[in-house]
Amino acid sequence: MGNTYRYRGFVLTLFLGFLSVGCATRPGSETYDPLPSWNDGPSKQGIVEFVRDVTDANSAHYVEPSERIAVFDNDGTLWAEKPIYSQFFFILDRIRAMAPDHPQWKSTQPFQAVLENDFETLAATDRDALAYMMGIAVSGTTTEEFEETVKNWLATASHPVTGQPYTSMVYQPMLELLDYLKANGFTNFIVSGGGIGFIRPWSEAVYGIPPERVIGSSMELKYEILDGKAVIQRKPQLHFLNDKAGKPVSIERFIGRRPILAAGNSDGDYQMLEWTTAGKGRRLGLLVHHTDAEREWAYDRDSSSGRLDRGLDNAATNDWLLIDMASEWKLVFPSARLPGSE
Amino acid sequence: MGNTYRYRGFVLTLFLGFLSVGCATRPGSETYDPLPSWNDGPSKQGIVEFVRDVTDANSAHYVEPSERIAVFDNDGTLWAEKPIYSQFFFILDRIRAMAPDHPQWKSTQPFQAVLENDFETLAATDRDALAYMMGIAVSGTTTEEFEETVKNWLATASHPVTGQPYTSMVYQPMLELLDYLKANGFTNFIVSGGGIGFIRPWSEAVYGIPPERVIGSSMELKYEILDGKAVIQRKPQLHFLNDKAGKPVSIERFIGRRPILAAGNSDGDYQMLEWTTAGKGRRLGLLVHHTDAEREWAYDRDSSSGRLDRGLDNAATNDWLLIDMASEWKLVFPSARLPGSE
Repeated sequence: MGNTYRYRGFVLTLFLGFLSVGCATRPGSETYDPLPSWNDGPSKQGIVEFVRDVTDANSAHYVEPSERIAVFDNDGTLWAEKPIYSQFFFILDRIRAMAPDHPQWKSTQPFQAVLENDFETLAATDRDALAYMMGIAVSGTTTEEFEETVKNWLATASHPVTGQPYTSMVYQPMLELLDYLKANGFTNFIVSGGGIGFIRPWSEAVYGIPPERVIGSSMELKYEILDGKAVIQRKPQLHFLNDKAGKPVSIERFIGRRPILAAGNSDGDYQMLEWTTAGKGRRLGLLVHHTDAEREWAYDRDSSSGRLDRGLDNAATNDWLLIDMASEWKLVFPSARLPGSE
Repeated sequence: MGNTYRYRGFVLTLFLGFLSVGCATRPGSETYDPLPSWNDGPSKQGIVEFVRDVTDANSAHYVEPSERIAVFDNDGTLWAEKPIYSQFFFILDRIRAMAPDHPQWKSTQPFQAVLENDFETLAATDRDALAYMMGIAVSGTTTEEFEETVKNWLATASHPVTGQPYTSMVYQPMLELLDYLKANGFTNFIVSGGGIGFIRPWSEAVYGIPPERVIGSSMELKYEILDGKAVIQRKPQLHFLNDKAGKPVSIERFIGRRPILAAGNSDGDYQMLEWTTAGKGRRLGLLVHHTDAEREWAYDRDSSSGRLDRGLDNAATNDWLLIDMASEWKLVFPSARLPGSE
C-alpha cells in the first residue's frame, strides 16, 4: 500500500512537472515570450495587446480567425532594401547573363552602363528607360523558367554590403511577428511593390508565406502552346504597379477582405495602412522606422528608396505604431551580422 | 473475478465497437464512401484513384499537400447556369432597383428593355451595349456596399424555373467532391468567368471556399477617401475577363502554382484544363457534361451559355474525365427538386 501511494505520488509529480513545462511554453501564458527579439517597448506592447484583443473570445474586439488577415510590405519591412532594392541587383545580373544573346546592348543605353558597371550613367538614366530595361530583364521566359532563374540567383548572389545571401537579410523580429500571428490564427500576406514572380519562389521557405499569399507588381502574361506544351510567357510590359493606392486595390482584388493588421515602412505603404485601419473594430497599423545606422541603415524623409515622410507626419494621428528599430529590436538580422562585416 | 472479467469483456466489446465505427467513417477505409451521390462510374473511380495516387506517401505520384491545388469553374460546374447565368438575373434586378435614380433609362436601350421585360429586344442587343449595361449594374458603389447588395439579393431572389434560392441550385456531387479534396489536403479555388465580387459574398457559406480563393472576372477599382473614410469604389469598366486563355493567366497571377486538378464544363474552361493537365506528374481534368434533361438541363455543342464543343472532341485524347450527369450522379441538387417543380 505504502509503495503504491509513493508510486502514485511519483506519477503525480511527473504529471504536474509536465503540466508546468506545458505552461511555460504555451502561447498566452505569462512566462512565454512570442517576440524574444523585441525589447519591451511601445511597439511590442501594442502588438501583444492587439493580438490579445482580437483573439480573446470574451473581448469586445474579438475577430473570427477567417477575418484575421495581416498584410506585410516586403522591401524595408521584412528584408533590407539598402543600398537599393535587392530586385535591382537581380535585374543587373540578369542583363549581364542575357547580354551574349544581345550584342547590340554593348552600345545601347542603359544596357551598356550595366555591362560596364557605369553606375553614374545608370543613376542619371530616366525612369522610362530604366523601366524598359527592367521589363526586358524579367521577361522572355515562361513563368516556370523564371522561377528557376530567381532560385538559382538567390542561391549564389550575395548582398553587396554584408556579403550575406539576400534571404539572410530578413528582420528576425519580423519573422517572429509572422510566426506569432500565424500561431494566433492570422493569415499573413505579402503586399509588395516588388515583382510577384521575384518573391514567390522563396517566400514560403523564408517567411512561411506560400506563393498564393504573395501580392506584388506584375508583368503581362500570355498563355500559349509552345512546342505542343501549355506554357505561360512573361511579357516585358508592366501589368500592375503595386504601390501606394495600388496596394489597397490589389488587396481587395486578391484577398477580398479588409485586413485587420498592416505593416509597412515607407510612404508606398501609406494607403495600405490607411485602408486597413479605417475598417470597423480593432485594427493595427505598423511602420518599421529605419533608425539604426549601426546594425542596419538609418533613413526616412530624404531616402530615394523606402522614403517615409507622410507616414512619419501622420503615424501618431492615425494611431499607427512607429517601430523604432534602434531602440525596439534586440536583434536585426537572424545572423546578427552588421552591415559591412564579412 | 467472474464479474470483473465480464465487465472487462463488456468494455472490450464497447472499445472494439468504437474502433469499427471509427473505421467505417474514416476516410481511406474500404467501407467509407466520400462521394455518396456519385454512382460507381468511370468518373468516381477516376477521381478516387487520382486522390489515392497523389496522397499516398508510398505512391510514385505523391504530391506534397502545399501543391495539391484544385481549381473549379463555377457556372455549370458547381451551380446551374440555365436558363442563363444567375448573375444575369442579378444584373436585371439591379437595373430595376437603380432605375428610379436614372429616369432616362425609360427611353434608353437596352435599359428600357429590362424595365419593360422586353426579352426579345434584350436578346437582339449587341454585346457591347449589354456589356455597358452590365458595367453600370455592378458599379457605382463601394466594394463593401456591393457585397451587401449581393447578399441581400441572394436572400430574396429565386431561380425563375425552379423557384429555389440560387444558392440551392448547386450540385450535391460537386459539394461532396470539394469536401473530399479538402479532407485530403487539397486547397480548392474557384476560377470563374463570373464576377469575383458576385461570388465572394457567398462562396464560403455555400462551397467552403473563402473569398481569397475566388478568382473571377473583375471590374476596375479605385481607392479613394470619401467623406474622410478610406473606400474602394467599383468602376463600370471591365478590368479582366476571366475566360478561356484568361483562366490559366489568372491562376498564375493569383495562385502562382500550376494546379493538379481542374474541373469545368464548357469550352471557356478548355485552357484551364489544358494548363493544369500539361504539368509534370499525375494530373486530373474533369468536365461536367450536362446530359440530364430530366433532373437538370441537357446541352453541349449548341448551347449559348456553357457551350462544350472542343472539350467534347478532345476529352478522350487529353485523358480528361467527362462526367455524365445523367448516369453518374445519383442526385443533382441537394434538395433533389426537379427543374419546374415548386
